[in-house]
Amino acid sequence: MYIDIDHIRQFSNTCLTQLDMPENEASIITEALLEADLREIHSHGFLRLPIYVERIQKELIRNQAKITESNENDVLAVLDGHYSAGQVVAYQAMQKSIEKAEQSGIGVVAVKNSNHFGISAYYSLMAAQQDKIGIVISNVSPLMPAVGGAEKVIGNNPLSIAAPTGETDPMVLDMALSNTSFGKVLFAKEKGQEVPEGWGVDEKGRSTTDPDQIINGGFLSPVGGPKGFGLAVMAEVLTGVLSGGHFSKMIPSMYDVSQKQSISHFMLTIDIKQLISLELYYESMKQLVSYIKESKKAEGANQIYLPGEIEFLKEKRNKEQGIPMEEKTFNKINEMAKALKISPLEA
Amino acid sequence: MYIDIDHIRQFSNTCLTQLDMPENEASIITEALLEADLREIHSHGFLRLPIYVERIQKELIRNQAKITESNENDVLAVLDGHYSAGQVVAYQAMQKSIEKAEQSGIGVVAVKNSNHFGISAYYSLMAAQQDKIGIVISNVSPLMPAVGGAEKVIGNNPLSIAAPTGETDPMVLDMALSNTSFGKVLFAKEKGQEVPEGWGVDEKGRSTTDPDQIINGGFLSPVGGPKGFGLAVMAEVLTGVLSGGHFSKMIPSMYDVSQKQSISHFMLTIDIKQLISLELYYESMKQLVSYIKESKKAEGANQIYLPGEIEFLKEKRNKEQGIPMEEKTFNKINEMAKALKISPLEA
Repeated sequence: MYIDIDHIRQFSNTCLTQLDMPENEASIITEALLEADLREIHSHGFLRLPIYVERIQKELIRNQAKITESNENDVLAVLDGHYSAGQVVAYQAMQKSIEKAEQSGIGVVAVKNSNHFGISAYYSLMAAQQDKIGIVISNVSPLMPAVGGAEKVIGNNPLSIAAPTGETDPMVLDMALSNTSFGKVLFAKEKGQEVPEGWGVDEKGRSTTDPDQIINGGFLSPVGGPKGFGLAVMAEVLTGVLSGGHFSKMIPSMYDVSQKQSISHFMLTIDIKQLISLELYYESMKQLVSYIKESKKAEGANQIYLPGEIEFLKEKRNKEQGIPMEEKTFNKINEMAKALKISPLEA
Repeated sequence: MYIDIDHIRQFSNTCLTQLDMPENEASIITEALLEADLREIHSHGFLRLPIYVERIQKELIRNQAKITESNENDVLAVLDGHYSAGQVVAYQAMQKSIEKAEQSGIGVVAVKNSNHFGISAYYSLMAAQQDKIGIVISNVSPLMPAVGGAEKVIGNNPLSIAAPTGETDPMVLDMALSNTSFGKVLFAKEKGQEVPEGWGVDEKGRSTTDPDQIINGGFLSPVGGPKGFGLAVMAEVLTGVLSGGHFSKMIPSMYDVSQKQSISHFMLTIDIKQLISLELYYESMKQLVSYIKESKKAEGANQIYLPGEIEFLKEKRNKEQGIPMEEKTFNKINEMAKALKISPLEA
């Protein structure tokens, strides 16, 4: 099933403005969700619209953003999102980080009391589109145990780094710090397959290759064991701790609609031209890209892809054909549309 | 075999000053090597002294540092190490990044034409010891293929993040972006064991669990496949590209004594108190530490460790007993001592 882009854009904006959200804020959320679906990161696309709407209706997410600043100077700022929509807060934070980078070379913005902001690449790419390098980190509710643990204490915190390459699309890394996603474990279970060692542990924290043991009481594991765990902990420090916000077990699940979430972000922008000439930078990037793309291929590999390249290819294809959507997601979205008394989404 | 700390400190300084290196520069190299051995990262400890000495003798590493700056402002600088010793350049770069952070909140220093600098935690900890968060990245000569590749194009670039915790040791992540080290693959081979899937590929880039196929013509793989590969590429951008230095296939091996290496680093320091009060920061860190340390343990686990905690425990133990050293390393170091005509190292 494919959904026309302009149609879903209008649909999503209508849903959000129906909740008294200003048009410009609705539009930021819509574009971030659309970008995720175009890039086929469907877990962070319009699939999330119903839960966002529910949280806004329950006043767990503000329908009108309130964002305040503190400790601001030419290089850094701390933003308090006051539980406004994550996309709106993150967009403003990244813009501020870009402005500071223009002014000083580097811009850092720490954000507290925000919400789930969708794909982190949406924000890091804002920098890359302006001859800058963007780094975006967020925490999320805890999902993984520590190495040697059997209790959720740390999020599979997303991390994105985007760097412009010049003529072609930016290079963009956008990853969560778990080895894999829960969706892939569920998929293996459906197929009756084992999962590779390292994907997860059972309820007692023991390594397992049985997807069932991960799903029923077990946990996803950090990517590369202690490496991913360490990165996830440091992501928590740079987001929740450094902003004076919440972290680790303080953060309830997004699907717990009895309480607010307080999510923290960290945005860093580097204005390349204040370190080296853009000419030299782009020349070097061209060289790096060619080293990678033109390196000897593994047996059976047709192509070597740069970080983010596959997602840009998907985006281009989906801009033509519309965004692919699962029927289950489509139906959930239309249940929501019905409750909001707006015209349904059409495939 | 254990080596007395004051003895090896004096020994190493004597080796380096014998090559007309100023005492303060010799001391920085010695302390960085010592720190690695104390933390039992032996691959980056005094094991490297003979190759450093050889490279200095061959004038591939300067025996007297020359470091120049460009594009400097209150927040950032680019340093050219002019092939000075990596430790001396990195130490000065980190100091500069700390000074800029004191002044502006954030300090970023990009470094080109440096050399192998030992363990990256040595530099990130400089920030953490001053109520700051330190982030250090370096590139190294290419070691890993791209995902889908069968040719070395990217270093297993090291990344370290250190954050102070207040009463206890800082949290410090110090990792290379390969799944594992070459040493561990060699160890598995010696024991006649298979290695886990994901550690490496054979000469044709095909996944293998046979250590022999990785060692003979094969390659180490990035941690978490595309995730580690993406991080390693972005590390290359932040170091070699952003400093206007060398990267990827431009960098020869450190053990190729026919040519200079040009290594790049990226140092970032955040002065915590310019974002939030140190009181709140340390209170939050205490809470984060307790969430992790006191979380439910996995079956069979006695203890949950913070990033870097095991290394601090080793350091404490080794400060008492001296640094552990393999006989092979000891003998190589003493061959070098003989050639330099200085008194041998004693166990």
